[in-house]
Amino acid sequence: MHIQVAVAKIGKYAASESGDTLEMIERPHGGLSLVLADGQRSGRAAKTISNLVTSKAIALLADGVRDGAAARATHDYLYTNRGGKVSATLNIVSVDMVTGTLVLSRNSHCPVIVQTGADSQCLLDAPAPPIGVQRATKPQIAELPLQLDMVAAIYTDGIQGAGERRGSQMDVPALVAELYNRTYGAEQVAQPIADELLAEALRRDEGRPRDDMSVLVVAVVRHAPDEVRRLHASFPIPPLHRPQPGS
Amino acid sequence: MHIQVAVAKIGKYAASESGDTLEMIERPHGGLSLVLADGQRSGRAAKTISNLVTSKAIALLADGVRDGAAARATHDYLYTNRGGKVSATLNIVSVDMVTGTLVLSRNSHCPVIVQTGADSQCLLDAPAPPIGVQRATKPQIAELPLQLDMVAAIYTDGIQGAGERRGSQMDVPALVAELYNRTYGAEQVAQPIADELLAEALRRDEGRPRDDMSVLVVAVVRHAPDEVRRLHASFPIPPLHRPQPGS
Repeated sequence: MHIQVAVAKIGKYAASESGDTLEMIERPHGGLSLVLADGQRSGRAAKTISNLVTSKAIALLADGVRDGAAARATHDYLYTNRGGKVSATLNIVSVDMVTGTLVLSRNSHCPVIVQTGADSQCLLDAPAPPIGVQRATKPQIAELPLQLDMVAAIYTDGIQGAGERRGSQMDVPALVAELYNRTYGAEQVAQPIADELLAEALRRDEGRPRDDMSVLVVAVVRHAPDEVRRLHASFPIPPLHRPQPGS
Repeated sequence: MHIQVAVAKIGKYAASESGDTLEMIERPHGGLSLVLADGQRSGRAAKTISNLVTSKAIALLADGVRDGAAARATHDYLYTNRGGKVSATLNIVSVDMVTGTLVLSRNSHCPVIVQTGADSQCLLDAPAPPIGVQRATKPQIAELPLQLDMVAAIYTDGIQGAGERRGSQMDVPALVAELYNRTYGAEQVAQPIADELLAEALRRDEGRPRDDMSVLVVAVVRHAPDEVRRLHASFPIPPLHRPQPGS
């Protein structure tokens, strides 16, 4: 039995960089945590905020701090550091090997979708204010036992709002259910779901994302090729930074 | 033009967990850093050390500390924290978008291999003591301009020493050169090189790794499908932690 994690991210069209940041870290007692933050506004300013938020949360999680406490402390840090004037959304997703659970901590108006069977979807959408602006903000937390064929999808604003201007917003939960069925039992589950969610959002925005878009998918799959842990990342070099031919 | 990063890791045979830790983080000014540490001995004790080392290095890099200073500070931290009694190897690999370079910082007896063409290989193997035991340890650092078709391979002890007992050690640099030519111009470069290096090491140890094995490969490739940043991770759930059917 394997855990698969997939992330697909793109920045707002014509912005210097994405204001969303995603970081991953091993949990000191086993398993891993993923932290996704969307900084207020876009471009450089948003990036600085989301970097600040994820690096604080990651440092706490690496020290063994529990997810709920890490989310609260990260809020307190941003609130103190920026005088309550800057907000960010924050999702912490942990595969906790000690408890055998998936822990979903959320400070975002975007829901988290958990699919455990063809007709079994759970939408985590209780109100969960962003961090940084209200004094005692706390996260919405769900802790679900890890089970085979479970898929969780987490995403930011840019996905939620894709196509909004043209009145053709996505029904993300319906698309997740469809992709769940399409990838059920396949070797690769997390990656095609993340890729297709992002691709559909891009289509709705006609290829020019109106906001930073990030999708994170975690899947528990049967397919286990071997005992090897693998990580693969790929990202474009921005045109400005590309080495010149022959240089 | 794309950057590809691939990691393949496995723990020592019959050990509770791998004593090697790999973490990745975005650099606040652009690009990313990878930190690979191999803690002294194996199993739980080694894991605690390598976690300590990587989380310190990651926290420093996230704050914008330069790689050489981060490696020195991480040594000082381990040396102070464990009274100079515990050693670890430490590699920091950064794709630095500000300088357009690949920065390779090394405190390990395992060399770093950089291949830039079919017959152009550079072996970074100057003596570089592990961190934690000698008072003023410093890293060996190489900073190379990012260029198309560049591949860097970084690995730990378990790869270097695979097959040693049977007198059939790997010639890692020769294998990297062979894999470089085999994957040249392909869509996927980093992943097959990392996978094959680990697979060959496993074969030399007859499928039962005598030490923790980790391989990290960074490649600069022409193939750029789109502007999306992607991350994919997969890892086995240890038998003990597998959910029971029907539970």
